[in-house]
Amino acid sequence: MARQALLASLDEGWADPSRLYREGRRARMLLDAAREAAAEAVGCRPDELVFTSSGTHAVHTGVAGALAGRRRVGRHLIVSAVEHSSVLHAGEAHEAEGGTVTRVGVDRTGAVDPAAYAGALRADTALACLQSANHEVGTEQPVERVAEACRAAGVPLLVDAAQSLPWGPVPGGWSLLTGSAHKWGGPSGVGLLVVRKGVRFAARGPADERESGRAAGFENIPAIVAAAASLRAVRAEAAQEAARLRELTDRIRARVPALVPDVEVVGDPERRLPGIVTFSCLYVDGETLLHELDRAGFSVSSGSSCTSSTLTPSHVLRAMGVLSEGNVRVSLPPGTAAAEVDRFLEVLPGAVAGVREKLGAPAPVTAVEGDALVVDALGKLCPLPVIELAKVIGTVPVGGTVRVLADDEAAQLDIPAWCEMRGQEYVGEEAAERGAAYVVRRTR
Amino acid sequence: MARQALLASLDEGWADPSRLYREGRRARMLLDAAREAAAEAVGCRPDELVFTSSGTHAVHTGVAGALAGRRRVGRHLIVSAVEHSSVLHAGEAHEAEGGTVTRVGVDRTGAVDPAAYAGALRADTALACLQSANHEVGTEQPVERVAEACRAAGVPLLVDAAQSLPWGPVPGGWSLLTGSAHKWGGPSGVGLLVVRKGVRFAARGPADERESGRAAGFENIPAIVAAAASLRAVRAEAAQEAARLRELTDRIRARVPALVPDVEVVGDPERRLPGIVTFSCLYVDGETLLHELDRAGFSVSSGSSCTSSTLTPSHVLRAMGVLSEGNVRVSLPPGTAAAEVDRFLEVLPGAVAGVREKLGAPAPVTAVEGDALVVDALGKLCPLPVIELAKVIGTVPVGGTVRVLADDEAAQLDIPAWCEMRGQEYVGEEAAERGAAYVVRRTR
Repeated sequence: MARQALLASLDEGWADPSRLYREGRRARMLLDAAREAAAEAVGCRPDELVFTSSGTHAVHTGVAGALAGRRRVGRHLIVSAVEHSSVLHAGEAHEAEGGTVTRVGVDRTGAVDPAAYAGALRADTALACLQSANHEVGTEQPVERVAEACRAAGVPLLVDAAQSLPWGPVPGGWSLLTGSAHKWGGPSGVGLLVVRKGVRFAARGPADERESGRAAGFENIPAIVAAAASLRAVRAEAAQEAARLRELTDRIRARVPALVPDVEVVGDPERRLPGIVTFSCLYVDGETLLHELDRAGFSVSSGSSCTSSTLTPSHVLRAMGVLSEGNVRVSLPPGTAAAEVDRFLEVLPGAVAGVREKLGAPAPVTAVEGDALVVDALGKLCPLPVIELAKVIGTVPVGGTVRVLADDEAAQLDIPAWCEMRGQEYVGEEAAERGAAYVVRRTR
Repeated sequence: MARQALLASLDEGWADPSRLYREGRRARMLLDAAREAAAEAVGCRPDELVFTSSGTHAVHTGVAGALAGRRRVGRHLIVSAVEHSSVLHAGEAHEAEGGTVTRVGVDRTGAVDPAAYAGALRADTALACLQSANHEVGTEQPVERVAEACRAAGVPLLVDAAQSLPWGPVPGGWSLLTGSAHKWGGPSGVGLLVVRKGVRFAARGPADERESGRAAGFENIPAIVAAAASLRAVRAEAAQEAARLRELTDRIRARVPALVPDVEVVGDPERRLPGIVTFSCLYVDGETLLHELDRAGFSVSSGSSCTSSTLTPSHVLRAMGVLSEGNVRVSLPPGTAAAEVDRFLEVLPGAVAGVREKLGAPAPVTAVEGDALVVDALGKLCPLPVIELAKVIGTVPVGGTVRVLADDEAAQLDIPAWCEMRGQEYVGEEAAERGAAYVVRRTR
C-alpha cells in the first residue's frame, strides 16, 4: 500500500504546495488529505499535526520546542531510562545547554513505575517524556497513569509513540506525540509531531513558513502520502494481526527457554507489543550468533555490546539490569508466516550451541588470592568473562567467593545478571588496577 | 532515472545500514555507493559529504555547525542579501542567539560585488555564505573570487549550490557546500552537506552516530540512491542541455520585451543559469497573471507580494531594486520542448493585456496640495498604486511632482522601479499619517 501510494504521488504530488499553479494546488490537496488521515489515526486535530523528515527529527523538534515554550517555568526535563536514543540525545543536548534531566529507572521488565515517575515531577519541570512501548523489548509503558500525574502537576507529557502507532492511538491525556512512518511499514523520511492545542511550544532554530513553522524545508509529499496511506492500511488489520503476532511471539517466549539452556527472555510477558520478543543467551557472542542466524535466513537485531558501534551494551538492557550477552531481538513484521517462526525455533538451538562450542575452548587463568578465587578475564570481551566465571564457580565451596577481573564494560551488567539467573549471590564491584573486580559468592 | 532508482532501492535499500544482517549490509553498500557518486559529482571526498533530509536541513546544519566550530574566533556571519530563505533564516536564528549578521547587497542584476563582499570580512567573522547562483533570477555569483578573499582572511565560505549542482561542480576554494536533490530532478527528502577536511565544524543540537554525527535519524536510503543516480544522469547531459535551455531562455529574454509593453527582464543576461528567466510587468497583478497562465497550461512562479503568504515582495527583487509587480519566473526543466516556449510567448501578451484591462478601471482619487499632485492609493494593493501614478504623471508639468500615498509594502519597491523604467525621477519617501508618501518628479 505504501509503495502504491508513493508511486502514485510521485506523479501527482511532486510540486511545491505553496505555489499557485495547478500542480502546486494538487500537491497542497494531497498534503491536506494526508494530514487529515494521519490525524484521524493518531486521534488529534489536523492542525495539531505536522510532518517532519523523520521520527528522530520529530522527537528533537518536539522536545526542544516544548522545553523552550516553558522556559519560564524551569529547565527540568524528565525521561525514562529506556527511551529511544533520539529522546536521550535530546536530553543530552538540553543538559549541554544548561538544563537538567532526570532519568527515571525501570523494573526488570523494562516498565517505569508510575509513582516513581510522578515523584520525579518538580515545580521547575518543563517537560516529561515517556515512550508508549519499548523499542527493544516491547514492554508497554503506563502512559495513561503517567499522563494523569503530569496533568495534575501541569507538566506536558511528550509520548514517543513510534513503536505503538501501527497498533492504535495512544490513549490518555498526553500533550505531545511523535511517530515514524517506517516503523509502521511506511517509507523512510517521514515523521510526525503532534502538539495539542494549548500546549506552549516555541520552535527552536531556523524556521520557515512550512508545517506551521515546526518543520523547515520542502515537504516530501510523495512520502507523506505513502505514510498516511500505509498507516490507514495497517490500522485496518491491526486488531486481527496483533492477535496473530502475539500468538507467534508467545510461542517464541515459551519455546526458546525450553529449547535452549541458559536463556533469559526479557520484557513484560503480558503488557507488551505484539510483534517483538527479546531474549539473551548466556555464554554467547551476540555478533557471531547474529551471523549464524543471518546465514540461516533470519535477520535479527541485538543489544549485545559486540553488535553496537560503541561496544557498549544496549542502554535498555542495562537499565533493566538483565543479561546483555548473546542478546537477540526478533521483530515480526505484519504478515510474518507461522511457519517461519517454527523454522526459527528449529534453527536457533543449533546456532546457539555452535557459538557456545566455539567459545568454550579458552581455559580461564585462575589464582587463589587469600580465601577468594580470582579469574583474570582482563582484555577478554563479552561473553568470555561470564563463561570463565561459570567454569570455576563449581570449584569453590558453597559460601566461598570468586573475583572476576574484567575490563569489558558488558561484564558490569552481565555478571550480576548471570548471578540472578543462576541463583548465585552478586556481592558487588570493587575497584581494581585495571577494569574492575566483580565479586560473586557461591550460594548453592 | 530517479524514479527507477527509487523503485529499485525501495526493494533493496529499506533496511537499517547499521545492522549486521544481510539487508542491513546491502543497505550500507547502497549508501556508500551513493555517497561516492555524489562526492564525485560535487568534487569532494566521500567522507566529506553527508546526506541530510533536505537542502534546507543541510543549510541549517552547515551554518550552525560552522558557526559553532569557530565560536572562539567570533560570532559574525556574512550572507548575501539574495540568499535562499534557508540561509537567511539560519542568519536570523544566529542573531536571535546573540550573533551578528552582515547582509551584503547586490547590484541591479542580483550579483554581489566581490570587493564589497571582501570588505565585509572582519577579524571576528566566523563564516561567510554565498549562493552559487540565485534561485529567483538565475544570476550567477562570483563565488571563486569571494572564496579567494575568504581564504586570504582565513574565513570558511559556505556555498549554497542548490541551483547550480545539476550543471556542474562549484569551482574555487569553498569550505562548505550544500545542495538539494529535488532541484536536480531527484526525489524530495534528500539534501547534501559537504564539509571540507580541516574546516572546523561542531554539529549543534541532538546528534546520533549516523552520517558522521551531522544528520540525525534513520537514513532514507531509497531516496538517497535515487538522488545520486539522478545527479549522475543529469550531469551526463548537462553540457548539451545547458546550451539548449540557454537558447530558449535567451529567446524569452529577447522576445518578451518586444511582445509585451512595459516589461522589465531582470537578472544578469550573461552570467546566469541556463533554465531560469524572470521578468516583471508594470500594472499587472501577479496572482491574476499566474492564474491566467495556469489556465493556459503554464506553471510559473512569482516574486510579487500578492503571490506570497506574507504579502511582501520577494526579498531578492527588493535587494536588486527592481520592479516586483507582475513578476513572472519561468523555470525550464531539462527536456523542455522549444515548441512549449514558443507557445508561452504566444499566450503571454494576451494574458498580460487581459490583466491590465481588468485593473485599468479604477479612476485615481487625486488632489492638488500646494504645488504637488497627490494620489491617494491608501488601502490599494500592488499594482494599483503604480497604475494610478502612471495615469496622472502626464497631467503634471515637467518639473512638477506627484506624491503617491500608499500603505502596500510593495509600493516602496515598485514606485522607484517604475521611475527607473520610465526615466522619471524618484525623489524619495516621506513619512505620512498612514503608510508613506512616495514623491516622483516628472522629468520628461
